[in-house]
This record gives sequence, structure tokens and C-alpha cells, in this order.
Amino acid sequence: MNFKVKNDTFLRALLRQPTEYTPLWMMRQAGRYLPEYCATRKRAGSFLNLCKSPDMATEVTLQPLDRFPLDAAILFSDILTIPDAMGLGLYFAEGEGPKFERPLRTEAEIKALAVPDIASTLGYVTDAVSQIRKSLDGRVPLIGFTGSPWTLACYMVEGGSSDDYAKVKTLMYKEPALMHHILSVTADTVIQYLNAQIEAGAQAVMIFDSWGGALSHAAYHEFSLAYMQRILAGVTKEKDGVRIPSIVFTKGGGLWIESIANSGCDAVGLDWTMDIGIARQKVGHKVALQGNLDPTVLFSTPEVIHNEVEKILASYGFGSGHVFNLGHGISQFTNPDNAGALVAAVHELSRKYH
Amino acid sequence: MNFKVKNDTFLRALLRQPTEYTPLWMMRQAGRYLPEYCATRKRAGSFLNLCKSPDMATEVTLQPLDRFPLDAAILFSDILTIPDAMGLGLYFAEGEGPKFERPLRTEAEIKALAVPDIASTLGYVTDAVSQIRKSLDGRVPLIGFTGSPWTLACYMVEGGSSDDYAKVKTLMYKEPALMHHILSVTADTVIQYLNAQIEAGAQAVMIFDSWGGALSHAAYHEFSLAYMQRILAGVTKEKDGVRIPSIVFTKGGGLWIESIANSGCDAVGLDWTMDIGIARQKVGHKVALQGNLDPTVLFSTPEVIHNEVEKILASYGFGSGHVFNLGHGISQFTNPDNAGALVAAVHELSRKYH
Repeated sequence: MNFKVKNDTFLRALLRQPTEYTPLWMMRQAGRYLPEYCATRKRAGSFLNLCKSPDMATEVTLQPLDRFPLDAAILFSDILTIPDAMGLGLYFAEGEGPKFERPLRTEAEIKALAVPDIASTLGYVTDAVSQIRKSLDGRVPLIGFTGSPWTLACYMVEGGSSDDYAKVKTLMYKEPALMHHILSVTADTVIQYLNAQIEAGAQAVMIFDSWGGALSHAAYHEFSLAYMQRILAGVTKEKDGVRIPSIVFTKGGGLWIESIANSGCDAVGLDWTMDIGIARQKVGHKVALQGNLDPTVLFSTPEVIHNEVEKILASYGFGSGHVFNLGHGISQFTNPDNAGALVAAVHELSRKYH
Repeated sequence: MNFKVKNDTFLRALLRQPTEYTPLWMMRQAGRYLPEYCATRKRAGSFLNLCKSPDMATEVTLQPLDRFPLDAAILFSDILTIPDAMGLGLYFAEGEGPKFERPLRTEAEIKALAVPDIASTLGYVTDAVSQIRKSLDGRVPLIGFTGSPWTLACYMVEGGSSDDYAKVKTLMYKEPALMHHILSVTADTVIQYLNAQIEAGAQAVMIFDSWGGALSHAAYHEFSLAYMQRILAGVTKEKDGVRIPSIVFTKGGGLWIESIANSGCDAVGLDWTMDIGIARQKVGHKVALQGNLDPTVLFSTPEVIHNEVEKILASYGFGSGHVFNLGHGISQFTNPDNAGALVAAVHELSRKYH
């Protein structure tokens, strides 16, 4: 189907077409658990330099593929490039996570928010996509990605990470119109951003809704899912006659899986709290599922990993429509050999289900 | 029914018996958002002194009741009194949350774990229960509580709070038998502890499973719910001919609500992520529900609080079986007037549903 991709198992699984085995990749597969990543990161001087250099972003994107026979590559970047492009001034304080120099604090700041020019502010991302795609040379498909508007807005209003989302939720409850303005501008930006990634060569796209699970049922639908739906409606569905599948991942979103499956996406990402067999019963006739091993399983042994992989595969059952993944990004404290054991186990054990 | 309790609305709601309005209390209602609490806490010198003094624990337990017409009191204490009684050495590093001097690190330490003598190690808790019950003089019922074995084990193995539960989950996946030993000894301790609280005067009991939501579906059932079930089977069900209702609250446990409702509890606590009307459809014929306003709503205005309360009451619908509460403990940054607005709104708006 994708004549340019030698191994298109991942893309076929997302479209629920037959595959020979269950494909897999790992969220944050290019990350600190790999010594080769740490070496490049050190050379870059900072995480942001790494994101902003297409050469180095390409290098680290390919590192996990050189180590493990993964079925997809994912653009190395950060979800916060968008608010940075909007002028909020992203920086990383050592050991403190991402911060913004100019978080949204006043009504005037919120009303001044506008869709940035993607080419001039985020060209380094699309350059990285083109270069990675070239370097991959069709080995596996390349995933582009974005944060969800709600998740980006959390950072933009809080000014960094948060335990309780007090600032952004206070805004949401007290000034819903202002909150909707932030989300609306952000969603419009995301559409252009993802379409630029697709234009540059991304073959699938994923929306990371990392903080949607912090919302109530009603607030999730109004302030997070509605904007992901708008994005899915606006994103390029096909390029050169080839379908570009989309994945929505709301961490902690298992309760809302039916709504997510109706959002217009091709696949739903699952964290490890929901049984994937139950998820398949609920929505498997409509979307593919991606997940969902607890990343802490990788702190155990190859034997335990083998058993836990088998449990997930058995729970999903026979047939296509499953992309194996962790339920969250791989921890920096993971032994790379255990990541290798995971990849081997999925490839070996899944054949009998296809 | 409870002739000793002037206002037994809370107990009737837990047993799904008719009430005139929806009763409410707030998790962490005796807490830092109240200046009178902060004054007592300061006088105590430390949080642990406050927990260990029956006089001062009684004082702070009653403070929110003197301010607001709440429908239940909850023992002022901490879930970590149990591991402390087991010899792990609980302390609170200023601004850092709870810590243990002697966390469980080795197989020998785990195997040495034993059920402590409740009277000699936790007498200060049962003394507080007796004294609070006397001071309440039948105003409202008194809730006793415990942490769940899984949640206590998280602290016991991690040595304090954790973001990713890496240590305790590694133990769980690598050495399940050792994990089960910790949970088993802890569950047996909890049974004796809750029964001592009931003997001293607790009129309902609640199990706080704060970290059950960090587990996978399978691990939750095996390592958290199974031990809460054992506790529910072992806890005193009736005292002096009066039923002692039990509440199980797994934060992030909405996906497992059917299993929780089958655990032997009378009521299920809900965080704010699940719509309470959906929860009622799933399990309302079997258990009462307690919840579930997002505590950050209290950062808004009385008008917004009023509207959000109405939405929850409307979603639950007509009839008994609902105890209103927050979906998590009230934040220290809450304006007490907004807590008052919540209490007034629930009492006023709920009458039409009864």
C-alpha cells in the first residue's frame, strides 16, 4: 500500500488491515534511557538546542531504530514548540522541566494570542521531518505529533508543569470564554502545524493529550476533546493517494474511550489502566488501539516482560488493529536490554494472533 | 434508625434509605484552608503531634462542623499511622510530605513485617475516636478511616511519596510473593485497626485507596482490590444493632467501578473524572455513591459553584444513595467562604431530588 515504506506494518495496523504480527514502537523511544541519546544531548548543550537542530533531531530519532527492530519512528521534538512559536518563551530550567518566560496571566495577554506563522517559527520542525524522512529511506513510517490544545493550554497558563492545574482550571471555571479563546487559537495552530509536518513527510500523526485526564467528564468533552475533534476535521487525511492515519492519546482517558473513538481519529492510544480487551469490545469495530504496557514492567526481567506482553496480546485477541506500545513514555531509568526484550517479545508472541 | 445521632442523613444515604436532601462532607475538611486549623497545627508544633494528641485531634475534627452545617465528621488522623505502628518510623520533612526512616528495602525487612499490637501502638487513634464521638454528642456521625493496603505499601516501599511508583511496582512485578506478603500483613492490620475504631465509636468507615489508580487493570484487581475485599469481609458490620457502612475510594478507579461495587462495600467514592450519572447507571442498584466535585471548582465563585453542584445533582438524579463530596481533598488554597457556598448549594439544591 505504501510503496515507499519497506515495513508498513504500523500503518496497516492503524487502519485495521491485516498484518503478519503486531507492530510496536515506544513512546519516548528516543530518550535518556539510551546512552547514545545522552551523548547527542550532551553535545547539543541543551534539550532545546537538540529540538531545534534538524541534524541532531534526525540523529536521535534514528538511534532507537538502529538498536531495536521497531516498526515506526517518531519525530524527535517537544509538544511545547507551539506555545514557544506563539511567543511565550520556552526554556528548560535544569532538573525542573519546561517553563515559560511569559505565561498567559492577563485577559489582554490571552486576547493577544494569535496563530503564528508556521514556516518562520516552526520551520526547524518541518526541516527535521524532511531530513528524518530522507534518512529513514523507507525503513519504517515516520510519526508526526502535537500536544492537544488543552494540554498545551495547561502549560501556557500554569507557566510550567503543575500538580493540580489550579491556575488553568480556575480560568476554565471562572472565565470559560477566555479559556475557549486560548484553545481555539491553539487548535487552529495545531492544524497548520500537523499539516506542515505531513507536507514535509510525516506518514501518521498523533495528538498527545497528556493532561486531559485531569478534567471532569463534562470539562473533558468541552475543553479537550472538542478541540481535538476540530483538529482531526482539519488535518490532511491523504497525501499522494496514501492515507495519513491519526492517533489520539488522552492519558487517563479510559472512561471516555467511546467519545474519543467517535472523534474522527483512526486509533486511540491507551495508558496501562484500561484492559485492552475491554477497550476493544467497546470501540474496536471503529478504531485501532495503541498500547498499553505499564512502563514500569521494563524495570523487571525479560521473563516478566515476556509474560506481561503475552497477557496484553491475549487480551486484545486475534486480528489486526493493535499497535503495541507502552502506556506512557519509557522511563529514563530503563535498562535498554529490557526495551530490547520487549520488542523481541511482541514480535515473537504476536504472530500467533495474526 | 440511629437514635443517638440527631442528623443521620449521611448514614441513611450510604444505605440508600430515603433522606430529605443530599448529605455532604468534604475530604480533608479539617485542613489548612481553615485559619483555625492552622492555629491549632501551629500550637501542636508538628502534624504528627497533632495526630497523636486526642485533645487536639478532637479540636480540629470539630472545627469545620462549627463553621459549616456538614453532615458527617471524619476522624482527624493520617493513613500512615499504620506503617508507623509497624515500626517504619514516620516523619514529615517540612514541605516534603511524609517519609519513613526505615522503608522496606530488603527481603528480610519485608519478611519481618508483622501485625502490630493495635492497643499499644495506635491507642492514640482510638482515644481520639472516643473523645471526638463524645464531643460530637450526636450532632452528626463520625467516620473512621484507613489507607488501603496497596496505598500504604506504596509509601512503605517507596519511603515517601512517588511520581512513578518505580520501587513498589518493580517489587510487584519482580517479586509478587513478597508484595503479597506486605499487603497481607497490612490488610490484617487494617482489619484490627478499623474494628478498634468502630469499637471506640466510629459509625462508618472509609478505605482511601489513593494510589490504586496507578495500577494496570489486572494489577489493580490482584494487588489492591483483593485486599480491600479481605478487609471488608473482616470488618465489623454492625454495632449495638446499628449497621456500620463502609466506603471504598480508589482515586482514578472509575474504570473498575463494577468490581469495586462488588467488593462488599456499601458505597463507592468517586473522583471527579467519572460522570456520577453514568456511575449510578452502572452500580447504583448495588451501592451508594460518594462524590464528586472537582476541588478546583472551589477556586471559582459562589455562582459557578452553585452551577457545578446543580450539574452533579442533576446527573445523579432523583432519590437517595448519594453523599455529596469533593472528588479529592479540599485544597489548602481554598477560600473558606467558597467551601461554605458549596455546603449551602448542596443543601438547598438537592431537596428537589428527594
